[in-house]
Amino acid sequence: MQAEHEVVVLRLGHRPGRDNRMTTHVGLTARALGADRVVIAGAASGSKKTIDDITDRFGGPFDVELTDSPRRVIREWEGTTVHLTMYGLPIQNVEDDIRRDLDDDPLLVIVGAEKVPFDVYELSVYNVGVTNQPHSEVAGLAVFLDRLFDGRELGREWENATHRVIPKETGKKVEPVEEA
Amino acid sequence: MQAEHEVVVLRLGHRPGRDNRMTTHVGLTARALGADRVVIAGAASGSKKTIDDITDRFGGPFDVELTDSPRRVIREWEGTTVHLTMYGLPIQNVEDDIRRDLDDDPLLVIVGAEKVPFDVYELSVYNVGVTNQPHSEVAGLAVFLDRLFDGRELGREWENATHRVIPKETGKKVEPVEEA
Repeated sequence: MQAEHEVVVLRLGHRPGRDNRMTTHVGLTARALGADRVVIAGAASGSKKTIDDITDRFGGPFDVELTDSPRRVIREWEGTTVHLTMYGLPIQNVEDDIRRDLDDDPLLVIVGAEKVPFDVYELSVYNVGVTNQPHSEVAGLAVFLDRLFDGRELGREWENATHRVIPKETGKKVEPVEEA
Repeated sequence: MQAEHEVVVLRLGHRPGRDNRMTTHVGLTARALGADRVVIAGAASGSKKTIDDITDRFGGPFDVELTDSPRRVIREWEGTTVHLTMYGLPIQNVEDDIRRDLDDDPLLVIVGAEKVPFDVYELSVYNVGVTNQPHSEVAGLAVFLDRLFDGRELGREWENATHRVIPKETGKKVEPVEEA
């Protein structure tokens, strides 16, 4: 965990086929940038498999779950809920409050696909815009997590990886991990 | 412009059909998070149209260009080139250098699709990883731009918009813009 409490990403509105890659990117971004878990609403077994495979190879802990009841996940969440939307309050104005809330409680970060039902706005404690411009739920999630963790997620350790990337000025280097 | 010099995003490896949404998200993220222009390698007229439509509605300046010669764009770039890749040097170690370079020269930010030809690594001044984990070119670009501009891009003004979003705690509010 990158914080005192768990940070979970809830992906809404996955349409099988059409959204497979975006949903996979949401999950991989959640993992890489420090969330503990992603919950995907809908039939996203392909995305789940891709993300689980990456976790097996490059490490965790990180979990992927599927749900048919995303509203219940939101309603029953015992902690803070943040819905990322271009219509919300500017992240730069609310990020300090959200970071303080994370000192006390777990955080659910909700990212939609193109249309999000209105009650999600009402069920969320915060509606937050990473800019008030239309762009990408993947981009919004990435900036949100990097700011939430103040960049600490970039230096984290990964457990139970079989491989790791050795950063290089040019080219690619991947090494098998020898368990101590 | 969010900096002294122009920041341009070059999108490599667009495969028509398969990559349409990812390429559109790359372009919209470039626009929303402060780049001046996106150049897309390949037949991406659909993505160009979507991004141009958003600029017409929500403002600019922001330009979208297509190219058949992405290597020439890189080779002939008069300034700094940064290739975002999970194999590169950690962003937190090189971002200060890149920010200083942007005080002197324009910056080309190169983002690939799944496979990037090896010579792109060699042609780039910096190969930079937003984490050394596999995730999303959209997420990498978003975190890179937010750090490059130190968050200044979040408060920018937009010119020649016909509409703007009024940030709200709950719900959606979009207003027509009255030109002064």
